[in-house]
Amino acid sequence: MPDKHVVAGFIQHKNHGDRESNLRHIGQEIKQLAERGTQLVVLQELHNDAYFCQGEDIRHFEQAEALDGPSFQHLSQIATQQNMVIVASIFEKRAEGIYHNTALVIEKDGKLAGFYRKMHIPDDPGFYEKFYFTPGDHTYPAFSPIATSLGKLGVLICWDQWYPEAARLMALAGAEILIYPTAIGWDPADNPEEQQRQLNAWHQVQIGHAIANHLPVISCNRVGFEADPGHQEPNNKTSGIQFWGNSFICGPQGETLLQANGADSVSQCCEISLHRSAELRKIWPFFRDRRIDAYNDLTQRYIDE
Amino acid sequence: MPDKHVVAGFIQHKNHGDRESNLRHIGQEIKQLAERGTQLVVLQELHNDAYFCQGEDIRHFEQAEALDGPSFQHLSQIATQQNMVIVASIFEKRAEGIYHNTALVIEKDGKLAGFYRKMHIPDDPGFYEKFYFTPGDHTYPAFSPIATSLGKLGVLICWDQWYPEAARLMALAGAEILIYPTAIGWDPADNPEEQQRQLNAWHQVQIGHAIANHLPVISCNRVGFEADPGHQEPNNKTSGIQFWGNSFICGPQGETLLQANGADSVSQCCEISLHRSAELRKIWPFFRDRRIDAYNDLTQRYIDE
Repeated sequence: MPDKHVVAGFIQHKNHGDRESNLRHIGQEIKQLAERGTQLVVLQELHNDAYFCQGEDIRHFEQAEALDGPSFQHLSQIATQQNMVIVASIFEKRAEGIYHNTALVIEKDGKLAGFYRKMHIPDDPGFYEKFYFTPGDHTYPAFSPIATSLGKLGVLICWDQWYPEAARLMALAGAEILIYPTAIGWDPADNPEEQQRQLNAWHQVQIGHAIANHLPVISCNRVGFEADPGHQEPNNKTSGIQFWGNSFICGPQGETLLQANGADSVSQCCEISLHRSAELRKIWPFFRDRRIDAYNDLTQRYIDE
Repeated sequence: MPDKHVVAGFIQHKNHGDRESNLRHIGQEIKQLAERGTQLVVLQELHNDAYFCQGEDIRHFEQAEALDGPSFQHLSQIATQQNMVIVASIFEKRAEGIYHNTALVIEKDGKLAGFYRKMHIPDDPGFYEKFYFTPGDHTYPAFSPIATSLGKLGVLICWDQWYPEAARLMALAGAEILIYPTAIGWDPADNPEEQQRQLNAWHQVQIGHAIANHLPVISCNRVGFEADPGHQEPNNKTSGIQFWGNSFICGPQGETLLQANGADSVSQCCEISLHRSAELRKIWPFFRDRRIDAYNDLTQRYIDE
């Protein structure tokens, strides 16, 4: 079996204040990544705008757009120009009253290869996503990799990254790379030790999915401080979010291939071997030995006594 | 809610050549751990003997014993003397032709609190476990934590550690600590880079289970080189196994609490907070948001196209 490589990259960046500036930055960075041979680029979660979910404000619904709306049209042109597969992230308006947090996979020829609507929706102070995003529904299978010219991409989004079930289902459906556009950061009020534990947990749980499924992982996170946009009552304002960057690419043994820092807008790329996953599945055949006769209760909320 | 602590430890050791010597070493180490306040001790996988699964030889079945056989009797006395909960690992004979790789949980009063029969059985060169061990069967739930005076112990064994499903099911059934007696090492023929990737993968996949389930993990591994016992045809001999030690205890954010080295027989202990898991499940409520409506295919072997 011949080795199969993909040069993959990510664009981790601070919010530039408005959609036009963010998309301009992304366009420039994609061009530079293309010059370095990048074939696949992953953008961060909701890259067009500020992370608006710090508060609950119906005015933000005006930002939402259709799957084939202006963001797709714009990035489709860039994909064609740069001959690159792009994993983008939009605030999708599907119908009046039904909005999703949606990843788009745009093929090199500019066509929409597929999309994924975030399945696990968080809601905690500063991350009021349940207000905005209807959880992804599904036909079959529930977690479907998106076929592209580079391979099958197991695209998930942010909060999904804490769920081994999502990664496993993508792997069982044939994903060759796990991909997470994400928007996670610190509450500036937490102490440095807690902040470090949270960052490590975020990093290592995704490394765990790589290892358990023998798949490379690309995770692209926002970076920089974003204040609470402040549409809420003053006493409900959060202390803002320090997005922690640290976007990374790891191989199918969890080995680090790329690791961005926690402070800067950076675009990086590296080569990923898709053949290595196949090798590992022969050496350590986890998939052979799954006890599918004993996993029924994974569909239970809790196994009450 | 008051904080609840457990002082937990492990005994990582080289094979001393015979059962009597191994059990003597374990007894001495438990006594020392007791003097340091240890309440719960985890022994390594198949601690009584050499790791006999390097070859397939029916003579090894003579080593197997009943749940309440001599190993239990011996360790039960030690548990009572030292007032300690012991997680032990035996080669169990359940009936003629039905043998298991079984963990025993022995209560402080010497009674058998429960047992767990290894569910995922490996088989690859040097680890011919499918020859010896019938996979664990199960009543309900399939992965049941064992109730003790210190809390509910989610005891799994070695190859189980690669399966997020097993850890999750233990957590859903109320486990408060995940515990892995294990026997894993390097093929001395592999190069140092591959050896390091394997060790890291083993460590990090278990860290991932801690994080995804907000549970502390105790993993106790064998250490030292064991040659192929050599009952096979000479051309089937393996190059032996360098068991890599590195036993560890981590907290529910995956943070390292203890980490043994890769070369020595060592016994260590530390305090684990069980309250911290409850705190984390409020801050990052993963269990609230599991998409149990979309996890059915986890009981599929593969999702064929």
